[in-house]
Amino acid sequence: MTQHILVTNDDGILAPGLLALVQEMRSLGTVTILAPDRNWSGGGHVKTLDRALRVREFRLEDGSQAFASDGAPSDCVALALLGYFKEKFDLVVSGINVGANLGHDVTYSGTVTAAMEAVIAGIPGVAVSLEVPEGHVGPIDFSASAYAARIAVENVMAHGLPLDTLLNVNIPFLKKEEIKGFRVTRQGLRVYHSRLDERIDPRNRPYYWIGGDAPTGLPESGTDVGVLSEGYISVSPLQLDLTAYRALSDLSTWEWK
Amino acid sequence: MTQHILVTNDDGILAPGLLALVQEMRSLGTVTILAPDRNWSGGGHVKTLDRALRVREFRLEDGSQAFASDGAPSDCVALALLGYFKEKFDLVVSGINVGANLGHDVTYSGTVTAAMEAVIAGIPGVAVSLEVPEGHVGPIDFSASAYAARIAVENVMAHGLPLDTLLNVNIPFLKKEEIKGFRVTRQGLRVYHSRLDERIDPRNRPYYWIGGDAPTGLPESGTDVGVLSEGYISVSPLQLDLTAYRALSDLSTWEWK
Repeated sequence: MTQHILVTNDDGILAPGLLALVQEMRSLGTVTILAPDRNWSGGGHVKTLDRALRVREFRLEDGSQAFASDGAPSDCVALALLGYFKEKFDLVVSGINVGANLGHDVTYSGTVTAAMEAVIAGIPGVAVSLEVPEGHVGPIDFSASAYAARIAVENVMAHGLPLDTLLNVNIPFLKKEEIKGFRVTRQGLRVYHSRLDERIDPRNRPYYWIGGDAPTGLPESGTDVGVLSEGYISVSPLQLDLTAYRALSDLSTWEWK
Repeated sequence: MTQHILVTNDDGILAPGLLALVQEMRSLGTVTILAPDRNWSGGGHVKTLDRALRVREFRLEDGSQAFASDGAPSDCVALALLGYFKEKFDLVVSGINVGANLGHDVTYSGTVTAAMEAVIAGIPGVAVSLEVPEGHVGPIDFSASAYAARIAVENVMAHGLPLDTLLNVNIPFLKKEEIKGFRVTRQGLRVYHSRLDERIDPRNRPYYWIGGDAPTGLPESGTDVGVLSEGYISVSPLQLDLTAYRALSDLSTWEWK
């Protein structure tokens, strides 16, 4: 039976990474596109309840029919799964994001939180991100990323995903033939180098940028950060149960009164 | 040594729950307040990088000096910890939120993601939320919640928290003397009843509300949802490592090429 795939992203409907993902997913099923009408990077897991959302029809560069919403990536998924389209979906794929989503990035990332929204609605979600070096200019080759997305989605179609679990796929910035293969990983440690940058506006009032260098990471073996630095595609299964199970017994010995 | 506590929230600087939390925290240390200038409920874990942030001084209803930012709750924490204030902080407490943050709510919740931001910066974070029934009108009694916040923060001061871990505290909507006590819990299952509500604007164009009934939950024993329904205060340790460890070995048997 043909699978119905919802494709979204957090870089916005005009992003070339979305088009690359759409074109690859077409070989796996029927594709419907609903993506934000602007960039939502770092936008988090949003549920827009205090305003109404708009959806308008759109054409991608290759002529594909698509839909753009003024909501966040997770709102796009909610709109699609709550019935904006009459058809049911079998899978949600989000990306291809420009920039890796590793370590703690996953809680901020619109790409990953779109896949979270799918999982909360009971549908498998796959987030796909390409590690693009800070300061890169010029076109980006998404072919290795599209290939990685296809392999991951084929696997999800064949095996399913455990309840409450999504796949976070990250691709190193290498040519496809240079990539060493896939590794199933755990979430690693990002190291953020944020710095507060205070400036003074023309009316002599301060304003603040969250600035600083791009995040790096601890390249531990077996983690998303680690295998990416070794030239592998990272596939991390992530769950939405955040319970720190190892802390439960310790906390139970604390005095609670 | 006096502890320095940053207090923030996601209901905005004018929310009575913030004032109640501030007043209670004063008995435990020096309190600094930096909160959003508007409501950010359901706003997710935001890192605002595409625009600058403003901070302005403010007075709470009791005359306390406070600061309001036009960023998200997590941005407020980032501003404070990256150096908007010259002092260092020992702990971040977020709340008291009007509305429980249970189950999957934790990934959307500004209250919880403010505590996440603290933990990512290496400082303990505590999120405090009061379950307020849908449709409640009139003033809210925060005294039981303030008490719960104090007990939780005292415990964190005495014992510390494991790395990468925050506390998610939820209080049932009961008088303090009716509450049965505290329970250390795991994250339970929220059941969302969202429904898409299509309307037509005066110019004959459709717009969409994410509507439907308020979420309920599966009141399983030992979960946040479960103990709250039994009349206990729920304290869940949450971690930012989302790896679905139980899925790792299964995924490793899939064909990755």
